[in-house]
Amino acid sequence: MDERRWFTELINGTHGLTIRVDREIVSVQTPFQKLEIFENETLGRVMLLDGLMMLTERDEFTYHEMLVHPALLAHPAPRRVLIVGGGDGGTLREVVKHPEVEQAVLCEIDADVIRFSKEHLPFVACGFDSPKALLHIGDGVQYIREHRQSFDVIIIDSTDPVGFAEGLFRAPFHRDCLGALRDGGVFVQQAESPFFDLAAWRRGCLELKTVFSQVHIYTASMPVYPSGTWTFAFAAQDRDPWHDFNPARFISLPGLRYYHPELQTKAFALPRFARELLGD
Amino acid sequence: MDERRWFTELINGTHGLTIRVDREIVSVQTPFQKLEIFENETLGRVMLLDGLMMLTERDEFTYHEMLVHPALLAHPAPRRVLIVGGGDGGTLREVVKHPEVEQAVLCEIDADVIRFSKEHLPFVACGFDSPKALLHIGDGVQYIREHRQSFDVIIIDSTDPVGFAEGLFRAPFHRDCLGALRDGGVFVQQAESPFFDLAAWRRGCLELKTVFSQVHIYTASMPVYPSGTWTFAFAAQDRDPWHDFNPARFISLPGLRYYHPELQTKAFALPRFARELLGD
Repeated sequence: MDERRWFTELINGTHGLTIRVDREIVSVQTPFQKLEIFENETLGRVMLLDGLMMLTERDEFTYHEMLVHPALLAHPAPRRVLIVGGGDGGTLREVVKHPEVEQAVLCEIDADVIRFSKEHLPFVACGFDSPKALLHIGDGVQYIREHRQSFDVIIIDSTDPVGFAEGLFRAPFHRDCLGALRDGGVFVQQAESPFFDLAAWRRGCLELKTVFSQVHIYTASMPVYPSGTWTFAFAAQDRDPWHDFNPARFISLPGLRYYHPELQTKAFALPRFARELLGD
Repeated sequence: MDERRWFTELINGTHGLTIRVDREIVSVQTPFQKLEIFENETLGRVMLLDGLMMLTERDEFTYHEMLVHPALLAHPAPRRVLIVGGGDGGTLREVVKHPEVEQAVLCEIDADVIRFSKEHLPFVACGFDSPKALLHIGDGVQYIREHRQSFDVIIIDSTDPVGFAEGLFRAPFHRDCLGALRDGGVFVQQAESPFFDLAAWRRGCLELKTVFSQVHIYTASMPVYPSGTWTFAFAAQDRDPWHDFNPARFISLPGLRYYHPELQTKAFALPRFARELLGD
């Protein structure tokens, strides 16, 4: 290794990802968290929150496409969509691609994430340019409590279940989300890696099952997140990811690099140990 | 980070995996390569060849199960199986689980890999204890040329396509493998990550297509390999992974943690960018 600074994100303090910091761009303490943006020769722009990897320019497409499209394509008419978190804009960028979407509300607690993304991460922040986008700076938990039967799809694009994001992985929040969905609505949440903290992963998925009658976990490659495999939780009442899926709608979505209609079913095949943790 | 030594495997010299070396066990230069075994608190025993990650005790099941079972379950009667490479024994351990297998030949060029695995990596080297196992120390390329129409399944469990393993990813070798297969035989090869060297990944897959009429690429999670997602190439003449697949045979396979019959089809769904690289 050379003399430049290296960012390292360890799992259990014993192993993890290391990235050379080729150019520091932002390093600030916001009212909520430490926000850093730097550049790496291979990965492009990199954003960290509280020292944890949020996104890289090279790989963010896998996470954002797979968080958004399975849920939106499972709903026959996703007109109003709520994103909780996602202040970088990448999830919003994917949501507004859908011609059915009339309004996409993004509720982010930390205005500085949006501000610095707009300034330094245009490849994701371009989502904010859409006339369909409506920003709300505030607490997602409170916002969801105050909006009953308002959304066709709710997307939780949060940090890990520690600190202020922890409540987003608990049944009381999931019940409020169910209340904020219109009839036939779909909920989707980033659900961490199945490979490390197995107990926490299992608990997050099972809490959802106490609230929604349909809970289906799927995976995607995420090269810079711990283990390289990430999971997402699809949840709904009386709706699964497949019944109303029309692959022809995929044609109208520009610039996809990861999502493909085959994944609408095949991404839901979990490794055996993960199936067994969930009792499937 | 603390004062202990850290092993780091970089991609492009810019980012990669770092693992704390909690206890050094082996560090030798064999006639073929540098072989290192160490212990890490989370990952258990770790083996490196020429400074590249080969396996960890914690995660090797994903790679070994997914290299072996899709191919063996695609063949209705896999009696004779050849493994080229795989001197740690993990692939052999999975092959001999199949009651249909009468003999599994392992052809490894470097006897020291077998020797040190037997001494320090019993969780994979237990494969060598099977009465079905037959060891051959030598060059796999030559061995395959000398055995025409001899195997129902050939498994290439090699290092990366650099140095002495490079030829294993080229059409002349694939033609020899086709010649060494019995009628209806199946070939499978570890095929690297689709996320980094896209041109090399594409070339390896396309070379196979010049030799075999059926080539199908599938993926598995591999937390400690670059990008965390690995691919495998299934190849055959007039046989696909599905036609003769009998999920009931899965029941007889003990101790599986990754493979599940659902993956026999669903693991073959590639991300869109990878499909497009292959012209699919």
